[in-house]
Formats: sequence, structure tokens, C-alpha cells
Amino acid sequence: MPAAFPLPQLDDVLEAAARIAPHASVTPLLRADALDAAAGCALLFKAEPLQRGGAFKFRGACNAVFSLDAEDAARGVVTHSSGNHGAALALAARLRGIPCHVVVPDGAVATKLSRIAGFGAVLHRCDATLEAREATCASVQEATGAVLVHPYADARVIAGQGTAALELLSQAPALDAVVVPVGGGGLAGGTAIALAGLAPAVELVLAEPAGAADARDSLQRGERVPTFAPDTLCDGLRALLGEPNFRILQAHAPAVVAVEDAETVAAMRSLLAELKLLVEPSSAIALAAVLAQPARFAGKRVGVVLTGGNVDPDHLPWGQA
Amino acid sequence: MPAAFPLPQLDDVLEAAARIAPHASVTPLLRADALDAAAGCALLFKAEPLQRGGAFKFRGACNAVFSLDAEDAARGVVTHSSGNHGAALALAARLRGIPCHVVVPDGAVATKLSRIAGFGAVLHRCDATLEAREATCASVQEATGAVLVHPYADARVIAGQGTAALELLSQAPALDAVVVPVGGGGLAGGTAIALAGLAPAVELVLAEPAGAADARDSLQRGERVPTFAPDTLCDGLRALLGEPNFRILQAHAPAVVAVEDAETVAAMRSLLAELKLLVEPSSAIALAAVLAQPARFAGKRVGVVLTGGNVDPDHLPWGQA
Repeated sequence: MPAAFPLPQLDDVLEAAARIAPHASVTPLLRADALDAAAGCALLFKAEPLQRGGAFKFRGACNAVFSLDAEDAARGVVTHSSGNHGAALALAARLRGIPCHVVVPDGAVATKLSRIAGFGAVLHRCDATLEAREATCASVQEATGAVLVHPYADARVIAGQGTAALELLSQAPALDAVVVPVGGGGLAGGTAIALAGLAPAVELVLAEPAGAADARDSLQRGERVPTFAPDTLCDGLRALLGEPNFRILQAHAPAVVAVEDAETVAAMRSLLAELKLLVEPSSAIALAAVLAQPARFAGKRVGVVLTGGNVDPDHLPWGQA
Repeated sequence: MPAAFPLPQLDDVLEAAARIAPHASVTPLLRADALDAAAGCALLFKAEPLQRGGAFKFRGACNAVFSLDAEDAARGVVTHSSGNHGAALALAARLRGIPCHVVVPDGAVATKLSRIAGFGAVLHRCDATLEAREATCASVQEATGAVLVHPYADARVIAGQGTAALELLSQAPALDAVVVPVGGGGLAGGTAIALAGLAPAVELVLAEPAGAADARDSLQRGERVPTFAPDTLCDGLRALLGEPNFRILQAHAPAVVAVEDAETVAAMRSLLAELKLLVEPSSAIALAAVLAQPARFAGKRVGVVLTGGNVDPDHLPWGQA
């Protein structure tokens, strides 16, 4: 875990938006009559699967990479992530023309690794433990001087992820609530900062797998759960809530809805059938949270951030008839 | 086949755009770096699966329904289509608050019929022959006074379908080519009219199943093929090119690329994996046509109209690993 740093503020999110504008997509807002009818509310989907790299993660990675001064940038960046953050950082580094190192645990999915390598990053394999990942990361830093860009416990990353909420607020006026998934808390933290600064009346609701509900538990206890064993299909939401992310969320006090994986898979299928969008389980959970609590959302205008769509079409989590 | 009518002109397409604006979505333009790389050109996808009703067909149906004077409208509309046009007409009629009758052949897919019925249309079943469909349609017209809105051989429908190209031209300046699928020729005809009027330097390319290549054959012969037996997975492209549609296309002289179904299925899978969009085989064929003729499109800016996304996620045309 990186050293403590000042929590990002609204200005950091606004600066991130300007910084990433030449590189990132303004993703469209999508709607589907049938999903509105099923949910009993107006659903405005922020379609981050259509972001470059296929996930919102490019926002934070791009902000981090283009925040670096020339000297730091020349030494490159490093992270540990076999998922969307690794690919996003690799893409951002390629756009800036600097080296990128990604530490990947043994057993990571080959297609995900080839995406990261496809964006030009150097892969460094290690054992599949948190200790091994951090040690390998540290040794890459020492050897190369590369700057660590943590997947979520990083002020530049949090500010970058908050730009999705900025866009959502401008595309969808008069929202009553915004629902985002929570894992490490980069997106949740950035969204909380954007809403607190620009639309404090909009309720923030976090969707979290029932089998990885450490954010809910941490916020309930008022103290960050230090460790847990995730058990969920949502591979993007297995991380422990970051320490700075926890502090941001504690100040905002969002609601957290815990969702069973079966509800998430059903929502993923509905999003494909009705919105025509392929999303990861870690995204579909946001719709599942709305459908799980109809009374909370009835009649409201609800922004839903669909975070990523990097799914293998040959391995969809429901049966083919 | 309805009686002959004057062919629609650019003004009709522009009027259609204004008429449907309160009801239809301006669908987003989507891009994917990986597909550009695979195709060797810049691909700008017009995402009509995100249109209301899940397909571009709502444009033509909506234009037809809202073109009617109050007296005609009150008697309702009728068509024969068990696919996207039937659902689109039902939705448009519901929005105007008028009756809609849809003649559907025995053996039509139950999920498609329930979509049409779900939009409030009255279903009229008949034998699965063209004669039975036209006879049933005529008897519904006689009994109810409903106005026939043919799926493609209708000036209002052709003009409405052309609005997709209007939007594409404004969203994607400086295109070199536009690729659209061709079946009955409503979209192809409307697109030809829009391009001829507003962007005559943009090449029009039609994508047609090799197993239903009557548009290619008709344009080559200079005479409309009167009948044929389609053999293709692309259920939206099995119709015979309409007579007015043929005349419009003959004047425009587009290129036609015939595509094998296997190439179409591969393109459909790529669009899901890389663009994150679920499209029908009848849409994916447009990308397949580009990939099949790399020399024709190399280095160009190519608008590709993805026409619809009404696919059952439980019956995708490729295997699950």
C-alpha cells in the first residue's frame, strides 16, 4: 500500500477531466425502455464499456500518466493488476510514449495478459499473493525508477475515475441517485468527490458483491476491515477497499447494496438483451442493485455507471439453449 | 406489393428527420481501436441497436405513422412482419395512440411475437407463404380501414430509414464510404438518397448475404430478380429487393459485397468482443463486408451502419467454451 497522501478534491477531478480530454472518450448515455419498465424508474446508463480499453479504468490511468513531469515519465510506470487497470495503464503509457511494467500473478487469465501485452507493456510474473505482488512491484521500481500507479489507492487515479461522474451529471441533469460498483474504491471515491462538489443532493449508492462486502462492513463499523476472503464472480470487485478510498467514502456516507452473484448474472443478461451492451459482471451489479431494491428507486431518475465490458464472448456466465 | 408511388427525395428524408425527432433516439457513433486495426481503416459505427425498439426500423415506421392525417391514423396501421419492422410499427403506433395490426406467419419465433404484442399490437396469424401474408393483410385492411405500412416498399419508410445516414454524415465528417446491409432495400434506398443529396462523393457499399444476393444480381442484370430462395442466417436480409428500392439503387449504382454467413458470424463475435455491442447477424454483415475486401477500404474513413440488436442472448451463433 502506498504512503498516505492528501485526499483528492473536486478541483483534482476537474483538472483530470481537462487532462484526459485529448485521449479519453466521452462515453454515451444509454437508455432502454424495457429496463426502465422492469426497474420502475428512469435508468440512465453511463456506458464505460465504450471507453478506450473497454473500461472506466482508462480515466484514472490516463490522468496518472499525463500528470507526471517529463523526468518521472521518462522512467515509466508500474502497477500490479491482471485486469482492466493493467491494460488501461499500458494504453495510457503507450499514448505518452513511455515504458509500462505490469506485475501479474501466476494463474491470471491468458486473454487478459495478452491484452496488456498487446498495448506494449512489459509483464513481470510473480506468485499469486499480495506479498509477492508488492515485492515484485518494489523490485521493478528499484530496477527501473518507474512510478507506481496503484489501481485505486492513488489520488490521481481516484480523481481520474471521478470524471465519469462529471460527464454523467452534464449528460443527465436532475438525477436523484447515482449507482456505482465498489471494489477497491477508485470509482466510488471519485464519484463521491464529484457528487459532493457539484450535486450534493444526488444520493450515492454503491453496489457490492455479497461475497465481497467489505466496503459495507467497513462503513458500518466506522473502521476499515483489514483483510477478507472474497467469494464472487465479480473479478473486478474482489479487492479490499483502499485506505484513502475508505476515508473519502466515510465522509460521504453512501448507501451500500450487497448483491448476490445470481442477481448480477441475470442483470448482465438483461443488459445484453435490452441495452445491447456487453458488460462485465462487475458492471452489471449496479443494475442488479437497483432491481434488488425497487422501493428505494421507485419513480426516480437514476444514473448507473456501467464500468467495463471486457468479457470473453465464448465464456458468458449463462447457458446457451 | 403496394401500388407504384413517386420515389422519395432528399426533402422527404429531411422532413422525416424533423418528424421523428421527438420520438427517435439520435444513436451514438461508436469506435474501437482493435477493429480499426483489424480492418486497416477507420471504422465509425452508427449504433442502431441502440435505437428505440432495438433497430433502425423504428425510423421508417415512426415516419410513416406520424405522416398520417388524423382521420387515416384513427383507423390504425397494418403490416406483415414477424421481425423488427413489426415491433417498430407497433411501438410507433403506441406512441401515437392508434391501433396496430401485424400479420405474422405460422412458425415465427415466439420471442419476436411477444415483443410485437408487448408493444400493444394485435397479431393476425396466417400460413407462411407470401400469398397468405398479403391476403391476410388485405383482409385486415378491409375489415378495419387500417393503412398498410410495408416493411420497405413504402416511400415514407424509405425516407425514414434515410435519417440514419443524415445523422451519420453529421456525426462523422469526411467519410470516404458508407456500408449498409441490404435486404428489402429500405435502408439501402434511404441511404442512397441521403448520400446522393448531401455527400455525393461518399461511396455507398451494400453488404448482402451470399445466400440471398438478389440485390447484387438485380443491379448487375439491370432488371429486378423477381423471385429467389434465400439461404442465410441473416433473417433480416431474406426479403426480395423491393421494386421502388431497386429503382432508387439502380440510379445510385452502389457496389455490392456478397458475404458468407461464417464471415458474418465472426464479425458479430468481434463486434461483441471489441465494440461491446450485441448486433444481429443482419447487422454484422456490414463489418464482414469491410473485412472481406481490405484493399477497397484500406486507409479510408468508413461509416458502417449496424442496423439492429434483437438477438436472444441464450442463442448466440457461436459455441461457448
